[in-house]
Amino acid sequence: MRTLDPRVVIADLKELRAQTGDAGGAQRVAFTATWAAARAWFRGKLTDLPVECELDGAANLWVTLRGRSDRELLIGSHLDSVPDGGWLDGCLGVVAGLEVLRRIAAEGVPPVTVCLVDWADEEGARFGRSLFGSSAASGSLDPEALRDLTDSHGIRLEDAACDYGVDLDRIGAAARRLERAAAYLELHIEQGPVLESMDLPLGVVLGTVGIERHRIRFIGQTAHAGSTPMAQRRDAFAAAARLALETREIARRGGGVGTVGSCVTRPGIPTAVAGWCEITLDQRHLDADRLAGMLREAQAASARIAGEEDVAVEWSQLWRIPPIVFDAELIEMADAAVHEVVGVSQRLPSGPLHDAAEMARAGVPTAMLFVQSLRGLSHTREEDTRREHLEVAVAALDRLTSKAMDWIAEA
Amino acid sequence: MRTLDPRVVIADLKELRAQTGDAGGAQRVAFTATWAAARAWFRGKLTDLPVECELDGAANLWVTLRGRSDRELLIGSHLDSVPDGGWLDGCLGVVAGLEVLRRIAAEGVPPVTVCLVDWADEEGARFGRSLFGSSAASGSLDPEALRDLTDSHGIRLEDAACDYGVDLDRIGAAARRLERAAAYLELHIEQGPVLESMDLPLGVVLGTVGIERHRIRFIGQTAHAGSTPMAQRRDAFAAAARLALETREIARRGGGVGTVGSCVTRPGIPTAVAGWCEITLDQRHLDADRLAGMLREAQAASARIAGEEDVAVEWSQLWRIPPIVFDAELIEMADAAVHEVVGVSQRLPSGPLHDAAEMARAGVPTAMLFVQSLRGLSHTREEDTRREHLEVAVAALDRLTSKAMDWIAEA
Repeated sequence: MRTLDPRVVIADLKELRAQTGDAGGAQRVAFTATWAAARAWFRGKLTDLPVECELDGAANLWVTLRGRSDRELLIGSHLDSVPDGGWLDGCLGVVAGLEVLRRIAAEGVPPVTVCLVDWADEEGARFGRSLFGSSAASGSLDPEALRDLTDSHGIRLEDAACDYGVDLDRIGAAARRLERAAAYLELHIEQGPVLESMDLPLGVVLGTVGIERHRIRFIGQTAHAGSTPMAQRRDAFAAAARLALETREIARRGGGVGTVGSCVTRPGIPTAVAGWCEITLDQRHLDADRLAGMLREAQAASARIAGEEDVAVEWSQLWRIPPIVFDAELIEMADAAVHEVVGVSQRLPSGPLHDAAEMARAGVPTAMLFVQSLRGLSHTREEDTRREHLEVAVAALDRLTSKAMDWIAEA
Repeated sequence: MRTLDPRVVIADLKELRAQTGDAGGAQRVAFTATWAAARAWFRGKLTDLPVECELDGAANLWVTLRGRSDRELLIGSHLDSVPDGGWLDGCLGVVAGLEVLRRIAAEGVPPVTVCLVDWADEEGARFGRSLFGSSAASGSLDPEALRDLTDSHGIRLEDAACDYGVDLDRIGAAARRLERAAAYLELHIEQGPVLESMDLPLGVVLGTVGIERHRIRFIGQTAHAGSTPMAQRRDAFAAAARLALETREIARRGGGVGTVGSCVTRPGIPTAVAGWCEITLDQRHLDADRLAGMLREAQAASARIAGEEDVAVEWSQLWRIPPIVFDAELIEMADAAVHEVVGVSQRLPSGPLHDAAEMARAGVPTAMLFVQSLRGLSHTREEDTRREHLEVAVAALDRLTSKAMDWIAEA
């Protein structure tokens, strides 16, 4: 009987890379021909398996292995990538799930139905709406908010995506697809440096952090760099610099993260004090109360600094999502699976969002495994993971799948 | 006999504004039709005066009132403006000089020759080279460095400026024009808030400050804002923010000014730690040693911060000019003239450069008067000065001119 062979996963990933990447990296941007080629390659891998394939209204690809119960265990991830992306982000979970499916199918009819899902457009690289397919399935996607999205060439999402199976009027049907879902599992690269810094191959994800993302504008007075004494300046950039450094301390104290990734000055020339400066602040924490506390602290700091610098400050919210915590029982099972495979496990929050968060949000009990990323790099062709870590990751997903099938069957 | 009438200067300035400005402000950008219109208006004001007009090879307009000696007292400033500029910057000095010339001419042949100079393209608004005409006259302008300058439409300075009298091959002749120059005087608005903050109408300029202008680039590591713990970041923007705030303290301690007017982050998105950040630093001081000390302190701070933040730092010089100190005897005369007119004077350095700096650099004994600017504003249509302050400024320039003529005649 065929048993699990994690080396096949690595071989499959290399094959996919060769067919859908170039010198710049992975090019499987959703709703493009290269993405379609990746899906065609994937469907070609299913021909020997006793599975059914279908696209839902959001172009999610469902591969179903019928079991003795019609209650479903979902294993999901995404084949789509960012432009010039890495060889593992997303597709590792799909290709590892495929190998797990092969192992289960080889053992006969499983106790529960197992669905491998390739979510459409997790990255949102072309139209700016990430988690497209999984949020359609979870019911959190508003089709009307999509109709006017366009790519950088002005092509509308509705027009581009209909070539690949999206029907905005049928997106509601994607949500009904979760009616029999009893659990959701996902394997993904960490895309961060935590596991590598702890010298651990695998981790169990506690949930995805909540995010408070704001734009903060300081307005002072543009003034001549030569003729304006230091004491008479109302320097918007200096106020922004002070706030950026304070938000860093706030994140450190609060046990979360805080990032000022963008800073724009106006007039933005060497010879003028900047009368206008806009920064973005992205704060994240797995605990909703502590996240709210971090935001309050940053707001108070901005008001104090604005007063001291004699500038005005305005906040506008860019985005906000609450923390989404995964299922406690499945987290225990994931921890046990990782222990069985590598002897040591680590629980950690996920800073990036994942399709798993949409499943948890929809009320599907969810767990997620992380495998170490080298140097924390992702969304670049330099993204990589040690081969031996990929292999134990596949083995851990396989064990977790077995535990979850038993759990569903016994419920 | 006609005596000095400062109110005529204000009337002339309003006439010029009406003919060469619009709702956005002054539009006398050098080497444009509106600038030519301003010069035509100015030449029209000379018809009743016993003066000769000539353009030198750099399109500077010289108005000469012959005296008993051919040693020359120069009074200069510039009619050109930035786009959407103010109604006083530059043209005040030319139009005030014209009224002084009227007063002198009415008294008969002066003891020395008096030249009123309208320097070409002080602002450098179109081609980026400020002090064009005066640096041609001082000999500090390299014609070869100008040949490839273009405006934002790709039009070459050489082609645009030849329509207005510039001949790059004859620029050397402009320098010979200073051979008989015995002193240079200039009246200008302060363009800063110092005199207003001291409640003084007039000031005497000690010289123009030295400038050290650098671009400073920090290179860290772009990283995911969600997945990268605070302790593992190499945040180029945080390093830049720290340096910007330290350079402010360095300027305060050193008694100069320091400005970070531009900050650019890359990738410059809310969801990534900036792996790359570039700021500009403009430091100014009237004392060369203290300016050098401010630069050394900033360089040391950048190296220390880069080490602490685990980022690289690179400096590249954008521009540098030493302090240019004006003539001690003429400064005394200017101080006396201001005292005679308003009873109180103040000596101060000029942060902005002026054509006067080029004259001092060329070895012409130079003095300069500042009149108060409201709110320190310039290079905007909001630029303004109280009418009574404009009137005493013209009177002070007139008195200083008389003192300088006597000084030259007695030398």
